[in-house]
Amino acid sequence: MIDFNIPNPYSELDAAINHKIDFKTKPIGALGQLESLAKQICRIQQTLSPELKNPSLVVFAGDHGLAKEGVSAYPQEVTHQMVLNFLSGGAAINVFSQQHDIDLKIVDAGVNFDFGNQSDLTNAKIDMGTANSLIDAAMTEAQFDQAIQKGAEIVNQIHVNGSNIIGFGEMGIGNTSAASLIMSHICNLPINECVGRGTGVDDAGWRKKIEILEKVQEKHSSISNTSELLQAVGGFEIAMMTGAMLQAAANQMIVLVDGFIATSAYLCAQSFHPNIQHYAIFCHQSGESGHQQMLAHLKANPLLQMNLRLGEGTGCALALPLIRSAVDFMNKMASFESAGVSNKD
Amino acid sequence: MIDFNIPNPYSELDAAINHKIDFKTKPIGALGQLESLAKQICRIQQTLSPELKNPSLVVFAGDHGLAKEGVSAYPQEVTHQMVLNFLSGGAAINVFSQQHDIDLKIVDAGVNFDFGNQSDLTNAKIDMGTANSLIDAAMTEAQFDQAIQKGAEIVNQIHVNGSNIIGFGEMGIGNTSAASLIMSHICNLPINECVGRGTGVDDAGWRKKIEILEKVQEKHSSISNTSELLQAVGGFEIAMMTGAMLQAAANQMIVLVDGFIATSAYLCAQSFHPNIQHYAIFCHQSGESGHQQMLAHLKANPLLQMNLRLGEGTGCALALPLIRSAVDFMNKMASFESAGVSNKD
Repeated sequence: MIDFNIPNPYSELDAAINHKIDFKTKPIGALGQLESLAKQICRIQQTLSPELKNPSLVVFAGDHGLAKEGVSAYPQEVTHQMVLNFLSGGAAINVFSQQHDIDLKIVDAGVNFDFGNQSDLTNAKIDMGTANSLIDAAMTEAQFDQAIQKGAEIVNQIHVNGSNIIGFGEMGIGNTSAASLIMSHICNLPINECVGRGTGVDDAGWRKKIEILEKVQEKHSSISNTSELLQAVGGFEIAMMTGAMLQAAANQMIVLVDGFIATSAYLCAQSFHPNIQHYAIFCHQSGESGHQQMLAHLKANPLLQMNLRLGEGTGCALALPLIRSAVDFMNKMASFESAGVSNKD
Repeated sequence: MIDFNIPNPYSELDAAINHKIDFKTKPIGALGQLESLAKQICRIQQTLSPELKNPSLVVFAGDHGLAKEGVSAYPQEVTHQMVLNFLSGGAAINVFSQQHDIDLKIVDAGVNFDFGNQSDLTNAKIDMGTANSLIDAAMTEAQFDQAIQKGAEIVNQIHVNGSNIIGFGEMGIGNTSAASLIMSHICNLPINECVGRGTGVDDAGWRKKIEILEKVQEKHSSISNTSELLQAVGGFEIAMMTGAMLQAAANQMIVLVDGFIATSAYLCAQSFHPNIQHYAIFCHQSGESGHQQMLAHLKANPLLQMNLRLGEGTGCALALPLIRSAVDFMNKMASFESAGVSNKD
């Protein structure tokens, strides 16, 4: 796996950042979570006048060999059908990206479909889906390295083009199963506490999903680190997102973390490089059971709690205006002094 | 008090609205709270293709006689200073309204200051602040009627100019005290459960605030309805907002409800006309202690929970992009059929 150098932001500016926030024309702390967001972004950018440049969102799509076992409510073909829906602009993430002027990129990380020559699709296909993790490792070490590297390369290109804030989404029938397995290992929780309804399995489907994932865990009981974990049970889209998140933080970009699957990639990224936490904004708490515990494990305070469970990076897109508000109040609000308003007694 | 005619939206379209939402290219329910928002807006507008026209926000400012008793961390002059800050564009609500293209109107409902000839300020001044409710009723019945009527007139003008969605904010040193007294009466809760830190009183200030408000309640123990309640302990900005909310619902506009003080006005409005609930969107849960219980009383599910406690309508402005997202996904997302995506087995 390639190496990432993620700096810990300097804290020399902290006092000046706090002073600027506290002397805006509002009671101390009255903008709540927007104030902590503003502080974080100022620290990342080492400035009192932060700026969001060319917000970007990358959706990684990949198929899962484990989907054959019936862990999802939808058939595997939905992965490639939804990729085509992204390319023709009809999915939720298209609508929200357009609303918020987000540059959207769709990446084939390993979908079980030949897309032919689709000029709007970034081809980073590792394989036609992962192997079935009930039988074998989902991917080889070489495939894992390739996925991490491709993710990093895609982010570097976006960074070179002038973006300093990037979110990540995913599409992959079966990938809540991979995310649950990653969560169980990294958060050290029994698998049944990590498994939710995904796109909507019923009670019987949920019990079956747990049984299958328990067997996958038995098969891979010798996992000893995060690289092995991703190889054994991950997905190409999850591994590629992990590499992408790490490279974004190495580039000192703001990293927007979406829901259950994206947070499983983030759990891996943070286990590789804890400094990534300084660059991460947790955009929402998903309706997928388990995401709340992932966020608790990370001591994360998500921006939205709207019971979304769609993936695609939709939570990142929906949270972007709040992040813009944090930047705007820092740059545009008057201070008590400039506005001639009396401060607290 | 003038009469308001607030219709209960017809439900004939409900099945068609639900069908349109459920056949978008996403699992059933996967857009969470955005789906219930979309349903509500479609019902209000009696359409499957909703539209937000000229979003507006009105900030009502007023002073409180009770402020003399030291219930706030800030001096009374801050009310008029902040009005001047709104007019010169330096407050948080200016920044967020500009960000989201919201038409912002500032109304002097009864500030203890002579603003002279300020062309950007709507003059609806009832008096130079309310009377001290520890000694007398905050306002006369005639003043109350006038405040309700002015609020309705201001909203009618905005509606005539083509707006179909309106939020309300407030500014008034001492108005968390009025809001706590309204909450205590309507939610039938002891005053100490309704009193928070406002703009930031300390422990001793908080205990003093409770003692004073208990005395105000003893003084006005004979209150028997919501009109009397608003006259005895309300504020001009709160009464005017109540009238404004009622007229907005009567015009079948979407009514955006902000934080603790705005919700106290809403509690009064709903007690006058329960049908207003069909038009109300609760934009956020404030950091002000008590707001959570107000929302629970109303069985409301707020869009944001960011620990804001600034007022000014800032929660409405920050929530607007989410409301736009609900409208956009209804109008722009592909259906399973149109996109050729397989639905759930």
